[in-house]
Amino acid sequence: MDPVKVGVLGLGTVGGGTVNVLRRNMGEIARRAGREISVVKASARDLSVERICRTTDIELFADPFEIVNDSSIEIVVESIGGESIAKELVLQAISNGKHVVTANKALIALHGNEVFSLAQEMGVMVAFEAAVAGGIPIIKVLREGLSGNRVEWLAGIINGTGNFILTEMRDKSRDFADVLAEAQALGYAEADPTFDVEGIDAAHKLTILASIGFGIPLQFEKAYTEGIGQITRADVAYAEQLGYRIKHLGIARKNRKGIELRVHPCLIPERRLLANVDGVMNAVVVKGDAVGPTLYYGAGAGAEPTASAVVADLVDVVRTLTSDPENRVPHLAFQADSLSDTLIVDIEEIKTPYYIRLNAEDRPGVLADVTGILARHNISIEAVIQKEPLDGESQIPVIMLTYGILEKEMNAAISEIVVLETVKGPITRIRVETLD
Amino acid sequence: MDPVKVGVLGLGTVGGGTVNVLRRNMGEIARRAGREISVVKASARDLSVERICRTTDIELFADPFEIVNDSSIEIVVESIGGESIAKELVLQAISNGKHVVTANKALIALHGNEVFSLAQEMGVMVAFEAAVAGGIPIIKVLREGLSGNRVEWLAGIINGTGNFILTEMRDKSRDFADVLAEAQALGYAEADPTFDVEGIDAAHKLTILASIGFGIPLQFEKAYTEGIGQITRADVAYAEQLGYRIKHLGIARKNRKGIELRVHPCLIPERRLLANVDGVMNAVVVKGDAVGPTLYYGAGAGAEPTASAVVADLVDVVRTLTSDPENRVPHLAFQADSLSDTLIVDIEEIKTPYYIRLNAEDRPGVLADVTGILARHNISIEAVIQKEPLDGESQIPVIMLTYGILEKEMNAAISEIVVLETVKGPITRIRVETLD
Repeated sequence: MDPVKVGVLGLGTVGGGTVNVLRRNMGEIARRAGREISVVKASARDLSVERICRTTDIELFADPFEIVNDSSIEIVVESIGGESIAKELVLQAISNGKHVVTANKALIALHGNEVFSLAQEMGVMVAFEAAVAGGIPIIKVLREGLSGNRVEWLAGIINGTGNFILTEMRDKSRDFADVLAEAQALGYAEADPTFDVEGIDAAHKLTILASIGFGIPLQFEKAYTEGIGQITRADVAYAEQLGYRIKHLGIARKNRKGIELRVHPCLIPERRLLANVDGVMNAVVVKGDAVGPTLYYGAGAGAEPTASAVVADLVDVVRTLTSDPENRVPHLAFQADSLSDTLIVDIEEIKTPYYIRLNAEDRPGVLADVTGILARHNISIEAVIQKEPLDGESQIPVIMLTYGILEKEMNAAISEIVVLETVKGPITRIRVETLD
Repeated sequence: MDPVKVGVLGLGTVGGGTVNVLRRNMGEIARRAGREISVVKASARDLSVERICRTTDIELFADPFEIVNDSSIEIVVESIGGESIAKELVLQAISNGKHVVTANKALIALHGNEVFSLAQEMGVMVAFEAAVAGGIPIIKVLREGLSGNRVEWLAGIINGTGNFILTEMRDKSRDFADVLAEAQALGYAEADPTFDVEGIDAAHKLTILASIGFGIPLQFEKAYTEGIGQITRADVAYAEQLGYRIKHLGIARKNRKGIELRVHPCLIPERRLLANVDGVMNAVVVKGDAVGPTLYYGAGAGAEPTASAVVADLVDVVRTLTSDPENRVPHLAFQADSLSDTLIVDIEEIKTPYYIRLNAEDRPGVLADVTGILARHNISIEAVIQKEPLDGESQIPVIMLTYGILEKEMNAAISEIVVLETVKGPITRIRVETLD
């Protein structure tokens, strides 16, 4: 089958990232979607600037309307952002019978009702996973994964810039204005940081999440919004003394009077996972009446994480175009005839660091014997804990942390160590996973 | 439209929970699915025992084949578990043209290839979100939400019993056998705990996740499996000294030789979110090449969390039956004509605890003035930090943590406090969210 023809409006961070991910993972994506997905046309305000993506094989236009009015384009990716022109383009694309994928939270939060109603009329899809929390598939989770629940509340760190600033204030005991200036210099924060630090961006996203969670219309104008500009490093420190962290949260909660819809700084207990979401990362907690509390964590912005969500939406659309409804998503994600026969690696061929604990006689040279054997198997030691023997005990526990080594080498070393006269009883070895 | 007719095989934890959730959230579920979902028939080995669900309006059978052979049933929920009879029932239901939702990880891990191929032939859906990590929609996330990525690795705490045991060993410095015995007494662990503590249950789930993540066939027999029975509380303590926690992980990772597929105890750095997933909770980290690391956390077992996943699958199936493909999932999760007009609550009507920081003159009676005002507004104080003044300073910071109070009461109190002669400068107040 021919590739599905996609037109991308805007080749900045999101558009450029989308082009890159679609190109790099082309084969894998086609195996999942059942059809190749190809960006054939794209628009950019200035055709001469350098971009994060290659544009060979892509026909470029300065005028995005040329793409939304092009009858060969099946799906339009709107990655221009903002409200006015983006809205016009999206409505035009829908009117022309094209499916639309957008990362535009302001567009959805403010004009979603209008956009969706036209889409329904025209029988096309409008997908917007990338509009909230970047690469975290939170829209899909709420709309589909938790559809059996009454949502009681949801709360999220949904602005990476704000979370970066609060994390730096805490980790380095710095003031708000200081960190903001640095974030601007590094490109993490916009020259005009209002949208991020005043909570408007988060309120756009919260509006969307609340609507999906509670089945209410989009009503951004009713969200309460308060920024983080008033937080001082003293507040961060006092909060810590009290056992809390300060985070900028978007919260939607059903109470007896109605639904709370609010973005503001919060103290949250330090033991909560959400309190430990640091830097530019995002996370959303959803409490459902059946599932209980659940949490979704990942990168909330950036070219590749946002592209991850845009491409997932593209695959969603293409799966709908390609398959009978009951075969829309292949059971194992990939089309049944395209499973790979990649080798499953034998455990002996796997490399990890190790934790080793053994009991040794308390006499000179024991550690030298053990480390000598390890060295002969090219096993380097990162840390050792050797305890004093307890009164009356002749044995001491020796604990070692090694660097990464193939399991077969470790097994060989252990089989030599275990027969040393000075080593008593079995040797415990536990693999270390750094999760990098 | 008539409700969709569902038959449930087995009314234990999963089946009973599914009946309960479908009944309790009937309205909300219908607004999402576009059609009511009704359990009309169910089977149970022993019809006389007490159940966790009401069975009024449900026709009960001792023989589950009566349900899979009943032409009025559109979707079968298989919640019997195990391999032999469940497999026969599922294949028979599919042969009869019924869609199947199952929570059965052993069935999918061991016989999924056969089940899926018959389903494809018969044009019916087989959904199994509940088979892995209970209420966490990790199957949907991997199959759909991250479909733009090449998965580099995934690692998860996917057995709640094992994680409960390891958490207790750490929190209370207890030995494995001790905690296991208690878990059995409390009903968290089976009388025969082999499946849980030896990692077989986790390997079933990992087999499914790896297949979906990497596009490889289900091959449980090639998974390396090692249990937690050898871990001692001494290991837990030494790991802690080294900056690690011990967790029982299922790991699938692509390396240059192929795919690693392994379940075993691991030391993981204590700062990782996964290291802080405690008790019976589950979590899965997925590292995609575009999205980076993402984490999904929630209850991995239990009647209601598992039912959350079963019902989400039912909604998925029903949405496919009810709508045109492009309208399968409503934009805002709920059918456009069924959005509710629930009130958005004014911020003044919202109740939270507060953190308050003010600067006061360092003289007797100041704190009494402030707390007197708070008391008149029914604001109780949970904690106070009052610092000694620095040399030469005449003002001291006073920090208070209050119990929950309506925002309008807090605003009124603060407007009185701020005009006290002894209080200097603005008052900082930050809401507290316990995320309960």
